[in-house]
Amino acid sequence: MEMWFSEFHTPDVKHSLRVNRHLFSKQSDFQRIDIFETPEFGRVLTLDGNVMLTERDEFIYDEMMTHVPMAVHKGIKDILVIGAGDGGVVRELTRYDRVEKIDLVEMDPMVVEACRNYLPGNACRMDDRRVHIYFENALKFIRHRENSYDLIIVDSVDPFGPSEGFFTREFYGSCYNALREDGIMVNQQGSPFYKEDAIAMQRSHQRIVSTFPISKVYQAHIPTYAAGYWTFGFASKKYHPINDLDAPAWEALNMHTRYYTTRLHVGAFWLPAFLEEMLKEVETEEGCQNAEK
Amino acid sequence: MEMWFSEFHTPDVKHSLRVNRHLFSKQSDFQRIDIFETPEFGRVLTLDGNVMLTERDEFIYDEMMTHVPMAVHKGIKDILVIGAGDGGVVRELTRYDRVEKIDLVEMDPMVVEACRNYLPGNACRMDDRRVHIYFENALKFIRHRENSYDLIIVDSVDPFGPSEGFFTREFYGSCYNALREDGIMVNQQGSPFYKEDAIAMQRSHQRIVSTFPISKVYQAHIPTYAAGYWTFGFASKKYHPINDLDAPAWEALNMHTRYYTTRLHVGAFWLPAFLEEMLKEVETEEGCQNAEK
Repeated sequence: MEMWFSEFHTPDVKHSLRVNRHLFSKQSDFQRIDIFETPEFGRVLTLDGNVMLTERDEFIYDEMMTHVPMAVHKGIKDILVIGAGDGGVVRELTRYDRVEKIDLVEMDPMVVEACRNYLPGNACRMDDRRVHIYFENALKFIRHRENSYDLIIVDSVDPFGPSEGFFTREFYGSCYNALREDGIMVNQQGSPFYKEDAIAMQRSHQRIVSTFPISKVYQAHIPTYAAGYWTFGFASKKYHPINDLDAPAWEALNMHTRYYTTRLHVGAFWLPAFLEEMLKEVETEEGCQNAEK
Repeated sequence: MEMWFSEFHTPDVKHSLRVNRHLFSKQSDFQRIDIFETPEFGRVLTLDGNVMLTERDEFIYDEMMTHVPMAVHKGIKDILVIGAGDGGVVRELTRYDRVEKIDLVEMDPMVVEACRNYLPGNACRMDDRRVHIYFENALKFIRHRENSYDLIIVDSVDPFGPSEGFFTREFYGSCYNALREDGIMVNQQGSPFYKEDAIAMQRSHQRIVSTFPISKVYQAHIPTYAAGYWTFGFASKKYHPINDLDAPAWEALNMHTRYYTTRLHVGAFWLPAFLEEMLKEVETEEGCQNAEK
C-alpha cells in the first residue's frame, strides 16, 4: 500500500511525505489536528493540513527560536511563549537554570493533549514546575500584561486565517508593553522565497520595525517548511543580536545543541542580497506606507 | 489539465512542480534531457529526471559557486569549469574583467545545445571570446593538465552513477596537480540532510581533506534541491576562504548579485552543529579510514 501526505507550498509546488500510519485525526474547536508516522521524518504534526513540526527536523526551529535570544540577553528569567503547544520551545527553554517562569499561552488544549500523547520528544518538559499553561486567546492575554517579561516567543502559525492577529501592529505593540525595558521578542516570520509568503514577511517586518528600536531578521534551513527556507524576527528594546552576543558565556553553559552554535548565530543574520533588499524596502518611511496599503 | 513533474529526494520524500508545457525531451548518448515550463520556477532543466536548475533559483547556485572563490583569490585569470553545460557558472565568471580564459569541459554536447535554445538566461555568455568549450570526458582532460589553472569549478551532478568519478581521491588529486600553487577548487557537495546524501558528502569531504591543505564546506538555501539545503566544498592550496576574503576589493567591483554578499560569504561557512560534527568525524585519521571502507 502507498500512502502519502502532501502539502502545497504554493498552488504550483507540492511537498509530499510517505506515510506509514495515520496515528491521530481530530477536529478541535479551532482546527483539524493530524499526526502521521513517516519513514523519513518520524512523526509529523499538521494543523489544517499544514506541517507544524516533524520529529526529524523540529530541533532546527526550536533551537533557533530559543538559543538566539538566550545567548544575547543573559538576564532572561520570565518568559512568555505564545502558541507552541507542542512543547518544543518550552523544552529548550527549561534547559536554562536561570529561567524562573515560562507562561505558555496556547489557544487549543487538544494540540497540547495530542502532543503529550504522540510527540513526547517535544512535550517532555511541559510539566516542569516553571511552566504555566494558559488555554486562552493570546491576543487578549497579552493586553493585561505590562513590564512583565524578559522574552516573548511568538510561535504562531502562518499569517493567513486564524493567526493573522499575531502579525498586526496592535499585537506587536502589546508585546512591546508586556516586555521589560531590556526585553526581546522573537517570532517566526515565514519563508522569504515564494511571493505570497515574502509579501507577508515584509509586511510583518515593517510593523515590527515601526514598534521596536532594534529589529533584525535571521534564517535557518528547515527541510519540511516552504522552500526549506525559514526566517525569524529578532525585535529588541536594548540588545543587538550580534553586538551583544556573549559567545563565551553561552559556551560555558556546555549545552549540547544539534543546529545552534554561537558562530552560526552570527551567520544566520547575514542574509542573501535579495532578502536584504526586500527588508530594506519596507524599513524606509515610504516603504512603511506602501506596506500598510 | 493537470501536469506535474516529481522528483524523489529520498524514496519517501517527493518534490513536485506543476508543469505548463514539456518543451524538450531527448535521449543523448549519455542521459535523458528534459526541459519543462513551470509557473513557479520558470523553465526547469532535468537530467535523467533530476532537477539540475530552474530559472527562478539558479542564481543561488551559480553565484555561490563563483563569487566565493573570486572574492578570496584576486589573481584568478585561468579557470577550468567541469560540467556546467548550462552556462550559469560561465555567465557569472565572465563578469570579471580580470578573467582571461575559461575552459569548459562538458561531456554532453546536447546539454549545451538545449540550454542555448531554451535557457538563454544561463547560456548567454557561452560565446564570450574567453570561453573555450571542450566536449570531452573531464576525467581524461584533466590528467594532461599541470600547474595550469587558478580556479577549478566542479559543477558535476550527484555522486551516484555516471558522475561518481568526480568524487574520487584520484580526481581530486588531478585537480590539485592542474592548479597553480595558490589555486582553489570549488565543487558541489550535495545536501547534508538526508542520510544517503550526507554519507556521500562525508566521503567526498574526507577525500578532499586528504588532498588539499585547506578544505572547508559552505552552504546555501536552494529550494529545488533536496531538503532545500545545499553544500559546496572550498579546497585550496594557500588561501583561506574567510581569513583571505578581501571584502572591500570585491565590493569595489560594484557587481550586482541577488544572493551573494561578502557578509553572507562569511556566514555561509558557519555550519549547523550536526553538520560540523559530520565533517569533523571524517577529518581525523581514523575517520578517513572508515570513510574509505
